Order: sequence, then C-alpha cells, then structure tokens
Amino acid sequence: MLPRGRPRAMGAVVLLLLLLVVGFFLFGRDPEYGLGTTATLDEKPYGSRNRSASSSQLLLPSKCEVMLHVAIVCAGYNSSREIITLMKSLLFYRKNPLHLHLITDAIARNILETLFRTWMVPAVVVSFYDAEELKPLVSWIPNKHYSGLYGLMKLVLPSILPLSLARVIVLDTDVTFSSDIVELWALFDRFSDKQVVGLVENQSDWYLGNLWKNHRPWPALGRGFNTGVILLWLDRLQQTGWEQMWKLTAKRELHTLTATSLADQDIFNAVLKEHPNLVHPLPCVWNVQLSDHTLAERCYLEAADLKVIHWNSPKKLRVKNKHAEFFRNLHLTFLGYDGKLLRRELFGCPNQFPPGAEQLQQALAQLDEEEPCFEFRQQQLTVHRVHITFLPHQPPPPRPYDVTLVAQLSMDRLQMLEALCRHWPGPMSLALYLTDAEAQQFLHFVETSPVLSARKDVAYHVVYQDGPLYPVNQLRNVALAQALTPYVFLSDIDFLPAYSLYDYLRASIEQLELGSRRKAALVVPAFETLHYRFSFPNSKAELLTLLDAGSLYTFRYHEWPQGHLSTDYSRWREAQAPYRVQWSADYEPYVVVPRDCPRYDPRFVGFGWNKVAHIIELDAQEYEFLVLPEAFSIHLPHAPSLDISRFRSSSTYRNCLQALKEEFHQDLSRRYGSAALKYLTALQQSRSRA
Amino acid sequence: MLPRGRPRAMGAVVLLLLLLVVGFFLFGRDPEYGLGTTATLDEKPYGSRNRSASSSQLLLPSKCEVMLHVAIVCAGYNSSREIITLMKSLLFYRKNPLHLHLITDAIARNILETLFRTWMVPAVVVSFYDAEELKPLVSWIPNKHYSGLYGLMKLVLPSILPLSLARVIVLDTDVTFSSDIVELWALFDRFSDKQVVGLVENQSDWYLGNLWKNHRPWPALGRGFNTGVILLWLDRLQQTGWEQMWKLTAKRELHTLTATSLADQDIFNAVLKEHPNLVHPLPCVWNVQLSDHTLAERCYLEAADLKVIHWNSPKKLRVKNKHAEFFRNLHLTFLGYDGKLLRRELFGCPNQFPPGAEQLQQALAQLDEEEPCFEFRQQQLTVHRVHITFLPHQPPPPRPYDVTLVAQLSMDRLQMLEALCRHWPGPMSLALYLTDAEAQQFLHFVETSPVLSARKDVAYHVVYQDGPLYPVNQLRNVALAQALTPYVFLSDIDFLPAYSLYDYLRASIEQLELGSRRKAALVVPAFETLHYRFSFPNSKAELLTLLDAGSLYTFRYHEWPQGHLSTDYSRWREAQAPYRVQWSADYEPYVVVPRDCPRYDPRFVGFGWNKVAHIIELDAQEYEFLVLPEAFSIHLPHAPSLDISRFRSSSTYRNCLQALKEEFHQDLSRRYGSAALKYLTALQQSRSRA
Repeated sequence: MLPRGRPRAMGAVVLLLLLLVVGFFLFGRDPEYGLGTTATLDEKPYGSRNRSASSSQLLLPSKCEVMLHVAIVCAGYNSSREIITLMKSLLFYRKNPLHLHLITDAIARNILETLFRTWMVPAVVVSFYDAEELKPLVSWIPNKHYSGLYGLMKLVLPSILPLSLARVIVLDTDVTFSSDIVELWALFDRFSDKQVVGLVENQSDWYLGNLWKNHRPWPALGRGFNTGVILLWLDRLQQTGWEQMWKLTAKRELHTLTATSLADQDIFNAVLKEHPNLVHPLPCVWNVQLSDHTLAERCYLEAADLKVIHWNSPKKLRVKNKHAEFFRNLHLTFLGYDGKLLRRELFGCPNQFPPGAEQLQQALAQLDEEEPCFEFRQQQLTVHRVHITFLPHQPPPPRPYDVTLVAQLSMDRLQMLEALCRHWPGPMSLALYLTDAEAQQFLHFVETSPVLSARKDVAYHVVYQDGPLYPVNQLRNVALAQALTPYVFLSDIDFLPAYSLYDYLRASIEQLELGSRRKAALVVPAFETLHYRFSFPNSKAELLTLLDAGSLYTFRYHEWPQGHLSTDYSRWREAQAPYRVQWSADYEPYVVVPRDCPRYDPRFVGFGWNKVAHIIELDAQEYEFLVLPEAFSIHLPHAPSLDISRFRSSSTYRNCLQALKEEFHQDLSRRYGSAALKYLTALQQSRSRA
Repeated sequence: MLPRGRPRAMGAVVLLLLLLVVGFFLFGRDPEYGLGTTATLDEKPYGSRNRSASSSQLLLPSKCEVMLHVAIVCAGYNSSREIITLMKSLLFYRKNPLHLHLITDAIARNILETLFRTWMVPAVVVSFYDAEELKPLVSWIPNKHYSGLYGLMKLVLPSILPLSLARVIVLDTDVTFSSDIVELWALFDRFSDKQVVGLVENQSDWYLGNLWKNHRPWPALGRGFNTGVILLWLDRLQQTGWEQMWKLTAKRELHTLTATSLADQDIFNAVLKEHPNLVHPLPCVWNVQLSDHTLAERCYLEAADLKVIHWNSPKKLRVKNKHAEFFRNLHLTFLGYDGKLLRRELFGCPNQFPPGAEQLQQALAQLDEEEPCFEFRQQQLTVHRVHITFLPHQPPPPRPYDVTLVAQLSMDRLQMLEALCRHWPGPMSLALYLTDAEAQQFLHFVETSPVLSARKDVAYHVVYQDGPLYPVNQLRNVALAQALTPYVFLSDIDFLPAYSLYDYLRASIEQLELGSRRKAALVVPAFETLHYRFSFPNSKAELLTLLDAGSLYTFRYHEWPQGHLSTDYSRWREAQAPYRVQWSADYEPYVVVPRDCPRYDPRFVGFGWNKVAHIIELDAQEYEFLVLPEAFSIHLPHAPSLDISRFRSSSTYRNCLQALKEEFHQDLSRRYGSAALKYLTALQQSRSRA
C-alpha cells in the first residue's frame, strides 16, 4: 500500500499494465511491509482532543465574498470518474463560491467540460489547464510513482496558475470531504509570515527509512508530510523563489537517489527538510490517510471530527481497516449521491448562475403545474448531467467506412450488453440513463463481466436520471454525438444484429459510395422473436426458415405493422441487391447513416413517435432509404416498459403525445414549407382513422 | 397554509378527509391569507449575522459520554414514512449516542419497531410509548388542528418520560436536520436557572391577530413561538408545576376561545405569555419554518448556516417559495439517502451495537472474499432494512376463508401492479426490493395511479436494496409474514390470475375444509403467453381454446417442463374436481396454503431453486398437493432478469447454486431423516443427467 495519494492519472494502458503487474515491489511502492512498532506518531499530532467547537479559534470568511480556489490534477478516464465523488462531497458541505483549477489531459478535459456544463452548479467556476504543456517542466525528473508525470505537476502550480491568485488548496482526486472546505481555507490565517505551504504529517513510517533493509527514502522532517491536501500560498512561493528552490533540491538529491518514489511528495519533503520554516503543519483530520497499514487511527480516534478522508491505498475502498466500514460509508454517501441536488444556490450571493441556468430556471418556473402535459414540458426542459466515456475507452482508428452502433438503455437492459458485444464486434456508443448509485452498479457489472471488460471500443455515456419520463431522444443524441466513426447504425438495445452485420455494413457503405455520392439511409430490416431461448440464425436463409416456421415474425407484426411497412419484407425475401423504398406514415426502420445526420427531436420523451419523427426528418432532408438485402436484426422479448404501460393506460399520456406530434409538424412546416405537407396529411389521415 | 408544524398524526381516514375538504378554512387553518405588511419580524431575530464560527460560544459535549434524548410523537402510515427522513438527516450529522423516545399509535409502532430492528444503527436506543394511553390526558381539550390529539401529547411529555430523564429535544416529524443535533443540545447550557423550555420564534404573523377580521388567536408573546422544535428541561418543568400550569391556562382560555387552532402550540404560547421567564428563545436557524407565506427569509438570508428546516405547510415539498429548490434539495438528499450507510459506528464509544449487529459483523468478517461463492454468502447474511406497510393500508376484515396474494417485485415490474389489481380484487401483501430513492418513485407511482390509490387492501412492504444478488426468498418471507388472512396464494409478480380466482379459491378452501381437516397446498396451474398484447381468457374453456391455438403454453413448456410436470396438465383439461398429485423432482407450482406454512429458505438468493426448495419443504411436512380444476394464472412476457442472465453465462454462478442445493439437502436430511432421502435421490439423478 501507498503511504500517500496521487491523482491517479492513468490512461487505460497504464491501468492495464498495473493490473498485470504482480505486487507493487516492481514500482518499489510498498513501504510499510515490515513496519516497525518502535516509531510512533506524536501522541497528539495536530488533532484537537476535546470537543470544544471544532473551529472555535477560527473566524470563518463570510460566505459570499470569499471565492475559494481549488486546484486538482486529473488525467484519464478513471481519475475523471473519481474526481466527481470528491466534487460531490466538497459541494455538499461548501457554502462559498468556488473556483476550480483543473489541470487535465485531453481525455479528462473532454469528460469534465461536458459534465460541469450540464451539471450547472451555481457559484462554481471551472478553469482548465493543459497538462500536456506542463510535461516538459517536470519530465526531467525520474519518477517511479504510478501517477507518472501528473503527480509532479503539483510542483509547478505556482508558475502556471494566474498571477492574481494568492492562495489555493491543492487536492488529490482520491480524497473525500466530510466538512466545509472553508474551514480548511481559514487555516491560511494561521500561517506565520514565513510559511508558504500547509501540509498534514504523513501517517506512515515511510520517511523514517526503517521499513526494510536498504530502504532509502528521500529526506524529510521526521515522518514527513503527505501532499494529498496542500495549502499553497502562491504569491509568497513566487517571492521565495520556489521554482529555483525545488529544482535545486531535486537535482541535488537525484545525484544519490536514482528517482523519486512518491513523485512530488518526495520533493516537497526534501525542500521542507531544508527549509522547515516554510511549512505550516495542518491538523491531522484534514488528511486522514487510509493506506493499508496506516497509523491514522492515532489521529482519528483522538479527533472530535474528521474533515478529509484520503484513500491513498491502491486498494481504495477495499482497503483492510478496522474502521473501513465507517470510512466506506462516508465515501459511498457521495458516490451514490444524486449530483443534481447540488444545483442549489448560495443564499444572498449574487451572480452565481452558470451559463444558461438562469434562463432554464425561468422557463421551468413559467410552466403551469396544472396543465395536463406539465410532466412532458418539464421533462423536455430538463438538462441532464452527462458523463461521457464513463469507462476507459479506446477510440476506433480512423477508417473511411467504419460504423458505430448507437443505442441507449437503462439499468433493466444491462443484461443485453454481453449478447450485443457478441453480435457486434465493432465500435459502439451507448447512452445509459442511470442514477448516480446505478452508475456504480453498472461499473461493477462491467468490471465483473469478462466479455464487457475485454471490449475497449464500446463507449458508455452516463446520462443521469431526472424526472419521470424516459428522455429517449436526448439519450440517443448523446450517444450519436459521441460516435467517432464516419457512419452510425441507429439501433435499439433490445435488438441483436446478425453476426455478419458489422462487416456487411462496412462493405455496403463502401460499395454504395455513401456520403460522397449519395445521401442515403441504409435500412436494416427488423424481426422479432417471442421466445426467451432462441437459436440465432446464422444467415438470411436460416432466418427465412425460422420466419416460415413461425418462430420469428417481422418486427411488431401484430401490434404496429405500419412501423416497418415500407421496408417491404416480401421484396426483401427475394432481393439480391439494395432497393430503394419510399417513406410512408409511421415508418421507423433501423438505419445506417453518416454521423452528421439530423439529431433526434428531444421533445419526444417517454413512449411513442421518437424514431418516427427522426425518419421524417431524414426523408424531409431527402435521404434515400435503401434496404440492404442481407442485413437483419432481431428483437428479443421483454416486458412492456413503464412508459408504454402508461401510454396504454392513460388518455392524458396519449393526448400529450398527440400534442407533441402536432407541434412537431408545425415546426416541420416552418422549416420545410410545402415539402412537409405530405407528413401533415399522413398525420391527419391517421388521426381520422383513430 | 399553516404557520406551524405538527407531527402529522393522521391515519388513512383523516388523510382522505383532508383531501376531500376544499381549502383549510373549514378547519380555520389558513391564518396568513390577507397577511398585512406592517408587522415585521425583528431585524435580527436570533440568527447570528456574521459568519464567525457558528458555535463559537458553545462548548460541545464530548462525543461518547453524552447520550442525547429526542422525543417524537408519530402516528399512522404517513407520519411513519415522514419520520424516517427526519431520522436519516439527524443520524447523518450526529456524532453522539441517541436515545429516541417515540410516542406512537399501534400502526406506527409496528412499522418503526421493524424498521429500527432491521436498520441496526449503532449507538441508537429506541423506546416506545403508547399514544393510546395518553389520549385521556388531552382529549378534554377542543382542538381544530389536523394532527388531532397527537399534537397535544407534547404537553404531557414531562409526565410520561422516565423521571431519570432531565432534558429532551422534542421534534415534529416534518423537520429536516442540516447540522449536528449536539449543537442544539448544547443550547441547554445557555438557559438561565429559571428557563425550562427553548423555542424558536414563530415565523409568521398568526399570533399578532391582525391577519383578518375577527381573527382571534390564542395569547402569545409577540409573534409567539413555534413548537416544531422544543428543548424541554424536564426536571425543572416538574418542579415548576408544569402540569398544573398548562391545564389552568388552557381551561381559562377555553372559557373565551372555543378550541385550540394550533393544538399544543396555542397552549405553550398562552402559558409563556403568562410566564415569560420560562422560555429561552432559540436562534431562528434551529426551526426555519417554510409555511406558504413564511417570513422565514428574514431569518435565513441573514444567517450563516441553517440548522433545521421545518416543512410546516400542508403542501410540504410543493410549497411555493423563492428558495424552494434549495430547501427541497436538502430534504431530497435524505429522502433518497441510502439508510444503510448510517450503520456506522461512533469512534471510540463503547457498546454501541444494537442486538445481533455485532455477531452479524463477525460472521461477515469471517467470510473469505476470495471464495468463489463469496457474493452468495454475503447476500445470505445481509440484514435488509424493512419498512412494512409503506403506504396507508386497511387490513382485511377477519374472514375464515380469505386469502391474500403474496408476491415480490423490484422497480422494473411496477407496471404489473395495475393489471394485478384488476385481476385480483382481494387482499395482497407485496414485498418491494427498492433503493431509498426508488421507494419515493414508487410512492409517486401509486399516488398518480387511480387504480392503485383506490386499493387500500394492498399492503406494500419495502425491503431496501443491499448487495448484488436479488434476495428473492427473503422478500417472499417478508410479504408472507405480513399477510393477515388465514390463507395465502404464493404467486409471482409476472403472473395474472384468472379474474375469478379470488372467489374460486375462497370457495374451494371452504369446500375442501383446508386447515381444519386437511393439510393441503392447492395448486393453481400456470400458463404463459409470449405476446405483449393478449386477450385474457375469461374461463377455462377460453383458456383451452387459446392453448390449442398455440397462443398460450403451459408455463415454461419449452425451457423447464419439470417445474410443473406433476400438475399433469392433460388431466387438468378434463378434471371436474380437485385431484391429488405427487411431488416430483424440481416441482414448483404456485400454491394456496395456510398462512402458517413453512417459510422460504433464505439461502437461495439470485436465480434458481428458490420455489423448488419451498415445495420440497411442504412435501416433507406432508402437505397434500391438490390441483384445482378451474384455477389458472398466466405468465406475461418479460426480458430475462439480470440474475437469470448471470446464471446462464457464469459457470461460477451455476456452481454456487449447486452448492446451495447440496447444503439445503444436508439440512433436509438432518431435519427429516430418511423421509428426505427421496429428495436427495432426485437431486443426484438430475446431477448425473446434467
């Protein structure tokens, strides 16, 4: 285990490497094996033993006026997930405006920009700094820590953060707050004039150098300090000549020590050993370090209150500890916490709203709660938090005819994923509609599935649940926007494609010269089985046999034949070449289109007409519909969704859907003029039939 | 709206009445209509304006030594639900041991005893007091408040709580904590020698008496005090002659005022008007009153920190308020909070564990995480929090042949409930496996469904989710234990019974003289349809026609015929009278049995063998299996569950199930001796076939 934490800035490759490596000795990372019992932490390190009001000596800054600055280095998919739990705990307790300074690689930036934009937390400003640009500043330092160069970047923060910034709190991504960060900020006031950095003592014996034979740690004051939580007095650091100072120290030590073991922490400690007047020791409760054989208990059993928990064991939540359950529960509180509840204002503080939030609130406030379609209106306006590429992902290499399967699902369809992976060997972009707690279950599900964890070309985008109606088209648009190949196969999660479909589609796209010459939507004919156990046909011939035997039907043959009428299944039986079909009312085939195709209309939430409207849009934009003679996909049985049940049982629901359709057609006429007339006519005919 | 809160001690009847009544004037309950603007709250009531550490003057009691006492009056189903959110917020922030004194009616006691027993929160003691016994003490007071007599019971707390108890905090059920209750407790230390009761000023103008013409409130000091949060110094109250005092005041005022409008609050205020030296005014942040036209903003905009939010509008979370979103988010935080995360110890405090918790923890700690069936072992040991009768419920009248449908479900089967209600007009006992957040969605689902909200004979028992495997038999046992009729129909949620089944079963039970003469399990033959839309047969004849047409099958005919082989469907086609069948391997019919039948074996978690084991148990206990000739129920299609998918795809899962089966058989042999041999033989035969 590690006596300190790091922003676990690992790309997928690094993670894989780590998992493959047996033990940590390879990295020289397990300082506490053979931990001696003679060395003891001070009896009362810095924790306050008595329960007099925890911050009794502090005058806390007033809530609105003081903007607190927090800097975090974050790189890769896993750290981007981890930082969110830290953020939720921080935001839960904070009462001041916050400015986050995030030093990120391209992956983390992409994820976190989307997340914060859609999260819309009042009184939070986020600035991004490109970690790539900082690499040359630290890459000369040999480093054995798994965080790679990213940990070392904490050393150069004083030079890259804005000059106007006097003070900043620096955090590792693996800490959890259980108190208001303003209390930590207030500790700056306890600094003497000379002190420039605030740190908690290291809660392990690593730096005592007696852990095993020939263990030679970097120099440190006693047990040294942990850099998972740092108070940096930036302007004083500049004045002190920090940059020169740490570089000199590092270079000197590197004459005798081959590399840093604990990255920036080694260098911080070496500098502070030399200049002990620079450090302000912080109370131990501000960085309770749960490494595997931590001595933290001596801190926390004495303390009235724990402020920040630091998961600085590579085992993270699985760390063995007498009080593990207690700490885990603190962490799980925020892991599963519904992040939208943090969209709460700070009382009496002006100008807190992030872009768009105020207009959105006004629009929501103008809705009439008594109106029968209120739920629909509210759902349409809802901005869902979006966490793109929730899991490590390897983008597909650029290939001119490649196609991504696009679909969306919620928790009750997870069991489809493995089968889908077996049927579709190509890239996928899937939107998942989950609660924060379900997102964790999903993570566990993927990690424990050999099939899913082997596939790095499937991108999972979590859209967080909010509201009673399933925002099907918003989900589709998220998945579609994240597809990285030139073509997309717009499918649904209950369908399994023919085993050959991925290859066949790429060949067809090439042959038909889609995109370059033709604006076309390739139709994949849809079938369904009603049986749970079902032997999937290996060819069109086998499929036709099953169809004739009554084991398969064309999709929704009994309930909604018009949805696929235009596909013309009898022609498809005989077809040897792609054939063009014309749009007809309620047509909703599964199609392959260029990635830049029109988006789905987000007004359709819940059940009904969500794909139909999209196909109309394609037709209105003059996409040809070409049915592929060898393509097919098969729908597996499932229970009716809650939304379809509500549609069937509630006339209000049906009336609201009708109203949406009409508004959609009005917009269509506005945009396409007389060309849209045929859709309106079709709608009116279907209404008069109904 | 109401200017104060009450424990909303309403049974279902009172709730219904309230819903039916148009407006609150009938109760004289809307004091703020016509609210004048002349009266103002003090500029700085008791909130501290500056953000100097909030409790800077307080020496907080040390965490272990001081047991905090909290008294709450709680009656009926809805208050029992409400109090849990209060408890979660209280437990989240507390760091001291708590002793809860709950004054409950029989309904609330039943619910809360089960809940706290299964919640197993360390360092919480719960004592119950029978509200029925207190009624005579306050029933002489005419009272127009919707809380009925329960509100008034706060007046007699000093006489009923143990004499050893010096001080207590009294709370209404509709408050939410956003801070540590120890800070409130510490305010006792600010009482002068004479002060006996601590209260927050009322944040409305009700007691000023200028709200409308002829508005005659009870006497009060200025705006009076709100009794949603009370600090009671019990021994001093006794010494002061509290009982005499409030009775005298109440009787005197009742000469001129016909009744209390705000129950105990009127009387508290009248007493304090007369004896102002008895009251210690508390800072307004300890009872931020969100009535509809509250003046609370004057408190909270000034305050650094809100401590307790009081939802004292009958609209509760739907109250209109500029900052409603902020307060709602605080409340929703705990509404959806996973209560099991509060099972966390208090550091360094001895003897905190509730009965059974320590043994359970030890058993869990002894499990080997590396063992392949670890997840199964862990799931079997898990004690789930159980909230019985989550919604208002009318127990069925005692009828000798009545039968309750027993089933269990999770969120993805909610859409079955309405159909089930249409098919089964009798009582039901349903266990729902939900997260805390889903329980709220479920509540919303029932409230917005006319079919479900009309049915008061359906009891819903929420079992809170914990762990990756569906604890199917634990759920069944919860539903079974709560069935209140002499017989139960043990069904599954995906089955719809014949429309006539409820009547037919009762008639059959009577005719067959079940229970008294025969120990029998009545078999209801099971069928299945593969179609989403399906016209349910009205009779056996219609069912047979559908069966012959291939629209229906006998249940799991394709996948698992042995499950219902013994039912002998061909005999059933022709049968005119009940016929006896013999057990055979893997038999798992749906049966009607006396309520005191054997429980399901909770070791079977996830998919597989959960019903089979129960039927073996019935057979071993010599229940006759009698197939009913006119009974049937039909399974509707749904997607395979996550558990069945895992069963199919994971050999470990299948091996673990096999291990469970073998352990079950060992236990069976131990209990039934050689009589259990036939089950073992059957198991061995099936294993050798596999």
